[in-house]
Amino acid sequence: MPVGTRATVKTLSPQNLLDLHAQIILGNTYHLYLRPGHELIKKAGGLHNFMGWHKPILTDSGGFQVMSLAGLRKITPDGVRFQSHIDGSYHFFTPEKVIEIQNAIGADIIMCFDECPPFPATKKYVTDSLETTLAWAKRCRSAHKNTDKQALFGIVQGGIYEELRRRSALELMEMDFPGYSIGGLAVGEEKEDMYRITHFLHDILPSNKPRYLMGVGTPGDLLENIGNGVDMFDCVMPTRNARKGTIFTRNGKMIIKSARYKEDFSPIDSECECYACRNFSRAYIRHLFSVDEILGMQLASIHSLHFYLELVGKARQAILEGNFDSFKKSFGANLDEIMD
Amino acid sequence: MPVGTRATVKTLSPQNLLDLHAQIILGNTYHLYLRPGHELIKKAGGLHNFMGWHKPILTDSGGFQVMSLAGLRKITPDGVRFQSHIDGSYHFFTPEKVIEIQNAIGADIIMCFDECPPFPATKKYVTDSLETTLAWAKRCRSAHKNTDKQALFGIVQGGIYEELRRRSALELMEMDFPGYSIGGLAVGEEKEDMYRITHFLHDILPSNKPRYLMGVGTPGDLLENIGNGVDMFDCVMPTRNARKGTIFTRNGKMIIKSARYKEDFSPIDSECECYACRNFSRAYIRHLFSVDEILGMQLASIHSLHFYLELVGKARQAILEGNFDSFKKSFGANLDEIMD
Repeated sequence: MPVGTRATVKTLSPQNLLDLHAQIILGNTYHLYLRPGHELIKKAGGLHNFMGWHKPILTDSGGFQVMSLAGLRKITPDGVRFQSHIDGSYHFFTPEKVIEIQNAIGADIIMCFDECPPFPATKKYVTDSLETTLAWAKRCRSAHKNTDKQALFGIVQGGIYEELRRRSALELMEMDFPGYSIGGLAVGEEKEDMYRITHFLHDILPSNKPRYLMGVGTPGDLLENIGNGVDMFDCVMPTRNARKGTIFTRNGKMIIKSARYKEDFSPIDSECECYACRNFSRAYIRHLFSVDEILGMQLASIHSLHFYLELVGKARQAILEGNFDSFKKSFGANLDEIMD
Repeated sequence: MPVGTRATVKTLSPQNLLDLHAQIILGNTYHLYLRPGHELIKKAGGLHNFMGWHKPILTDSGGFQVMSLAGLRKITPDGVRFQSHIDGSYHFFTPEKVIEIQNAIGADIIMCFDECPPFPATKKYVTDSLETTLAWAKRCRSAHKNTDKQALFGIVQGGIYEELRRRSALELMEMDFPGYSIGGLAVGEEKEDMYRITHFLHDILPSNKPRYLMGVGTPGDLLENIGNGVDMFDCVMPTRNARKGTIFTRNGKMIIKSARYKEDFSPIDSECECYACRNFSRAYIRHLFSVDEILGMQLASIHSLHFYLELVGKARQAILEGNFDSFKKSFGANLDEIMD
């Protein structure tokens, strides 16, 4: 899912996303709640209408953003009191409030409010946090008013502790959510721990419901976790890097501002079918970055999202054809180590 | 002509410009010479190939930009010595050099190197300057190597002095250029003086060759000068204003950041057919500007360029139908005074 934090995937229009064959995008509840506000979005007829994107949208719960406001937030059993990073104003997110906000925003898939523990955290901390998250999941489920139009996912927490992950998954499955998210990874732990946890959850989570790994990741992360049964991902990585001139390609990252591309009139990737590669050279895109022209960020974002979407599209096809492992191996061989 | 100073119309892709039915865009020789450099553009196969825009392009001569570098440039009979505004490096533009640069860039329409006098300037200064410009026009004409593919326009100067404008036009017409530009207006003189000069030149310049009024202007300026026989314009006004949140509409300028649009879910202009108006509300575009999202600048630029291109398109149609004066009157009645 391309990330559209504040009701836009940065630098791109909905038409660009349609051209990229994006099927679903993500919006951030915390950011949308602050600006423009969920009430405004509701008056606009929901986020789809507000931003002119009429395909599926997923919103997160705001839990991750709120927890990241170190020093500006206080966790209580009832919810989280926090200060806006914009103007310092005080707000209080409860499970019920977060569902009310997400009901107003109107995304097709919404998330339970969770506490995302930091990394590292003691087992004691993660256990307490998990109990809070499970209690909040129940409250979110009860508060959710729009079950026929919005699928509410439970979020599996438990840090890098398999025992806690199992407990989290099993208790959420008892609540019978239409899909399950895996939160609390990609927060600083070792790659091996991330892969170990998704692998561990592979046999626990129901195979007939979607699994969404939140905030992940590199192309290598995607392939590894698809191998562990994950169906959905979101990450700012392709677009945030692109805006800084680092472009994802089949052969690794390309630092497009590099002097080596100054007179390189070939496309970013001669085999790529995206708008950027069909029409523009590395030299041109480098020039745009050199003179701070916005089109450079757009073309880089288009290519990197195309690369990501093509990667998962090919993975999907390989799964259907029963040869995902060989696809993963052959694709991975082309990725240099910095992609991991 | 939308202005694409540094090989891109700011915030827009060539596809956006095609969707807007732009027929021709402008590039700035001074800026392209400094970055990425005309030699690089030549190696790319010319500016069309470099920037992926395969419809006509016009380049200015750099004269206006170089003259604007007050304190950083020295005019001599042979040319202008100046310092780059980027790194302070020294450069020397002669008529021959400017033609060499424009031949390398490869635009379909190119300009003679001219001295654009400041405003106000004494008649003595403007006369001397004009003589320089006329001498340079001759040298440009001789230096131009690519006459079958690039049309070189002469630039009429002479400030607000009709006698000098006549002399400038007649001497250039003797050199028989394929088109004539009117320079040195919109530099601070009264509107009445601008209109007086274009009206004055109307009966002097040949009616079978295009006339291009450089760096103009507001919607009102366009209509007034079309009435005075001008065929072509370029101006950063629609795009530069759009990027700051000021949008041109049939009913005047719209300051989209204004709080009055916060919950206004109607499009910028409900009768407009542009991508921004067909898909997005004022409230959404206001939100994008409020949170500094680039899509806001893009949508505002798309609308304002559409407005300008539709305005000249309708003027063209009205001329063909023989009712330009009534069109101008009816259209102008809708424009509030800030459009002038």
